[in-house]
Amino acid sequence: MNQKIVIIGGVAAGPKTAARVKRLLPGAEVLIIDQDSLISYGGCGIPYYVSGEVSDEQELRDTSFHMTRDESFFARAKGVTVRTRTRALAINRQAKTVLVQKLDDGSREEIPYDQLVLATGSRPNVLPIPGADLDGVFTISDLHQAIAIKDRIVRGEVKRAVIIGGGAIGIEMAEAFVDLWHMEATILEYMPQLLPRLVDWDFAGMLEYHLAAKGVVVHTNEAATRIEGEKGKVKRVVTPRRSLEADLVVMAVGVRARSELATEAGLLVSPQGNIVVNERMQTSDPNIYAAGDCIAVVNRLTGKSGIAPMGSLANKEGRIVADNLAGIPTRYRGWVGSFVLKAFDSCIGATGLSLEAARAEGFKAAAVTTAQSDRAHFFPTQSVIPLRLIFDLNSRRLLGVQGFGPMGDAVLARIDAAAALLQQDATIDDVSQVEMAYAPPFATALDALNATGNVADNLAAGRLRYVDTRDFLNWMEDFANRPDWVALDIRHPSEAEILAAKFGAEKWRTIPYIEIRERYRELPDDKTMLIICDAGTRSSEIQIFLDSVGLQNNLVLGGGLNLIRRLGADWL
Amino acid sequence: MNQKIVIIGGVAAGPKTAARVKRLLPGAEVLIIDQDSLISYGGCGIPYYVSGEVSDEQELRDTSFHMTRDESFFARAKGVTVRTRTRALAINRQAKTVLVQKLDDGSREEIPYDQLVLATGSRPNVLPIPGADLDGVFTISDLHQAIAIKDRIVRGEVKRAVIIGGGAIGIEMAEAFVDLWHMEATILEYMPQLLPRLVDWDFAGMLEYHLAAKGVVVHTNEAATRIEGEKGKVKRVVTPRRSLEADLVVMAVGVRARSELATEAGLLVSPQGNIVVNERMQTSDPNIYAAGDCIAVVNRLTGKSGIAPMGSLANKEGRIVADNLAGIPTRYRGWVGSFVLKAFDSCIGATGLSLEAARAEGFKAAAVTTAQSDRAHFFPTQSVIPLRLIFDLNSRRLLGVQGFGPMGDAVLARIDAAAALLQQDATIDDVSQVEMAYAPPFATALDALNATGNVADNLAAGRLRYVDTRDFLNWMEDFANRPDWVALDIRHPSEAEILAAKFGAEKWRTIPYIEIRERYRELPDDKTMLIICDAGTRSSEIQIFLDSVGLQNNLVLGGGLNLIRRLGADWL
Repeated sequence: MNQKIVIIGGVAAGPKTAARVKRLLPGAEVLIIDQDSLISYGGCGIPYYVSGEVSDEQELRDTSFHMTRDESFFARAKGVTVRTRTRALAINRQAKTVLVQKLDDGSREEIPYDQLVLATGSRPNVLPIPGADLDGVFTISDLHQAIAIKDRIVRGEVKRAVIIGGGAIGIEMAEAFVDLWHMEATILEYMPQLLPRLVDWDFAGMLEYHLAAKGVVVHTNEAATRIEGEKGKVKRVVTPRRSLEADLVVMAVGVRARSELATEAGLLVSPQGNIVVNERMQTSDPNIYAAGDCIAVVNRLTGKSGIAPMGSLANKEGRIVADNLAGIPTRYRGWVGSFVLKAFDSCIGATGLSLEAARAEGFKAAAVTTAQSDRAHFFPTQSVIPLRLIFDLNSRRLLGVQGFGPMGDAVLARIDAAAALLQQDATIDDVSQVEMAYAPPFATALDALNATGNVADNLAAGRLRYVDTRDFLNWMEDFANRPDWVALDIRHPSEAEILAAKFGAEKWRTIPYIEIRERYRELPDDKTMLIICDAGTRSSEIQIFLDSVGLQNNLVLGGGLNLIRRLGADWL
Repeated sequence: MNQKIVIIGGVAAGPKTAARVKRLLPGAEVLIIDQDSLISYGGCGIPYYVSGEVSDEQELRDTSFHMTRDESFFARAKGVTVRTRTRALAINRQAKTVLVQKLDDGSREEIPYDQLVLATGSRPNVLPIPGADLDGVFTISDLHQAIAIKDRIVRGEVKRAVIIGGGAIGIEMAEAFVDLWHMEATILEYMPQLLPRLVDWDFAGMLEYHLAAKGVVVHTNEAATRIEGEKGKVKRVVTPRRSLEADLVVMAVGVRARSELATEAGLLVSPQGNIVVNERMQTSDPNIYAAGDCIAVVNRLTGKSGIAPMGSLANKEGRIVADNLAGIPTRYRGWVGSFVLKAFDSCIGATGLSLEAARAEGFKAAAVTTAQSDRAHFFPTQSVIPLRLIFDLNSRRLLGVQGFGPMGDAVLARIDAAAALLQQDATIDDVSQVEMAYAPPFATALDALNATGNVADNLAAGRLRYVDTRDFLNWMEDFANRPDWVALDIRHPSEAEILAAKFGAEKWRTIPYIEIRERYRELPDDKTMLIICDAGTRSSEIQIFLDSVGLQNNLVLGGGLNLIRRLGADWL
């Protein structure tokens, strides 16, 4: 008799498992059950469907060769049976059956399986605040919601949107509303920064400044306390600080695993509600596998497991489930946490841990920030791409890389290379040496990623001391009360003198980089000098020189004014 | 007394060593000697200076902060002394001195060193053919040559250029001549393909077709046998097949190490003429280091050493020399061979070994080719980027990746990630799992690189059988004599029927992908079926299905018609 494989969930991990296992075991009977009518769509494309860059929701359901991934497609092309609008109610592990109910007529049926796959995904968190159930409050959880949002926009019903949650989806939705529909969009984030935990505050700050320049209002440290409506329809979002008029509210405050079926069947589920699987994606019942948003995935850097709700991981996990269903003992090596995000003309990406996250995990972590060119500085299309590298001071292990730059694939290239290094347990020395492809239209001879590895090496060796960027910005706001610090601006006089004129030559010293060796005796030895240039590179050199002549009371502004400028300091 | 460090060579590895060692050892006396008047320039930018994208040669000599890297700059900014137009004549290892001669007045001097660094670079190969010394024959070896070439172009003296050598520099120069100056440019390559040994023939073929479409004439398998001139000036290049009129000839046929000084000093030099160094970049004399084009670098994949003349490596090596001069025992882990190349609107890149090179090195190597999208297929800016992955069938070790795509950083991202994996001795399983950053504007949920790793896994497991692309193209030219093969085109009928009408329905069978499971009984079992789609992905699925129903006499066209189209097949 043919092996019967039942898969619960038809969005990402489920269909991937189904298609591959059918290729590995052509004789198997493979059935996908999903309670929705729509399956196998590109959920990550929802913001681009709402924005209009993807004109029709159909495109999110199509293959690259323009066929709709519906029940008929899976049956004919893949030999996989799909039952939509069919809800799995319970798993009977002894009998090896799943009890399902057809949503259209309420009828029930016990479906036998030899092996079962749980790809039940996640559901969006909904804040427990008044008004969360008003008409016009959406989560970006499925294609139906996306279609409903776009319908309202197209009908002209939406002028002002409030997005609760400053994560990737919230930011993508804000762009969608503003860029093409010219709506007003406000993001509320209750943490002190956008993309909390994913990137450090200065990279979030560059993003926030860019969003503001594009017309997206961002309020951090600010929670929505209630949503108010009229006649059941949303009208405004209220925070402790303000009331924001809104025709539409997007609640994008994370997701949690759909694991009730697993829990009720007695499978091991983590306290956070994620289905526990081994490296082969097997649950505590060896005949039941799980993949996608519903499982606990081991983070390769921390060794801890938790939810990792990303379409890219669901696809990898689904393939591994299929392998193991077919007797190929493929193992999942864990995730590292790569992401990238378009924000109007800019993009931000990261892989691994932020400094904050790394320290919270107990690493003796340090970070360096650079602001180098993405390609040869003489090549016309070059741009500065600030990069940040996080590493462990004890082991020199690479822990994470963040990047911010113009929209394009330059940041992506550095993040992807760093992700590969992270997966292979690389050190900062590997980052220095990784052989990034070079030609002037694509990179600098020493790639920005290599340079960032080199700076990390200098920091680790004690050859570099930074001023904390936040401390520097605070000092700029409050000169008068910090007479122990002075700036040493080593840029070209035509640049440096502007700030010296503004802040006074005592506070803002200027000696050009090229003249320091001749003029260092003019510098005070009773002040902490903050060495300032555009990218931080020259400053590091000057720090080493000043140290060598006994002027060790100095700190480098990492990333230089390239970073500060992107943070929107109003004095620059 | 201060440590005296003398560096011979002032282009890339030399200045890098000097600048860093001066930072590590601020008290050291660091001297760079160079016989040229120009030092520390971006030689890789020469084609872009000739093209006009870089308007002034000065830009190639400037830092990113617009200072010229000349003698004065090194003295003032770095504390490094530079003597230009000073030739090193001999090394006295016993006395630890270098005999130098000033080129301007012929005077000689013995310069003492504690440690010596050889960064003598390479010189371009000049073919031993008649006319190689004519006025108008250039090698792209230094900035003087670049300035002379551009001067002639600007003066309107050059309408037709012949480039001898189809490597990266030759191709970049051809683009420079054609794209902005609208000159006629012909590339002669004596090997059967462009970029010989660096990429496999089909990737070189896509490049060649693109160059041809942009007006660059390419003749492969064709050597220049002589250059003819009039009144000492170049007039034409003669090959066994034709005579090409030319006002300017670029000879870009590789470089060889400048290692005479080392040889004469009795240092270990390889039979190929490259200075032998250990992992710490020390020559056979522990007081003499070497870096850059002049040394033998170990290839991390083959374990063999040879010349690796790349500016990106020179920088890495120079840093390692400086570390070791300062007592930091940094080791170089070897190179893998990454490169990327702009060619008009396209680019090509690779890292590691080509299939041909891997097999020549004794690997039991195999290759797979894909033609996936660089970003979500529904995202407006998506393009197909053919990728090729080379791996060892015994160990599953990754050996190389090649990519071709539109100009931009999409190919770069995949090559850089692959380079990182290669450096860390990764397997194809690591390629499948590497966590490329994903969002629809940047990648597909399963990145093209991951997908290529998956295809390699399928090949390794015997789940995929390819028709050799060259065999397929030959068959297309010679249908009549190969009645044992038929095409099975599984694309949409609107696409497939065009070719069926052209070649006959017996030869060019069409059954849409979606209908194969219903109609496979129509297929012949006495012919080898070449399964054809756009990218190769659907074909692989169909191969597995046909195998499962006993129709095993079939082969997949890897990369599908996306690849064939980019190779310029005239029947498509």
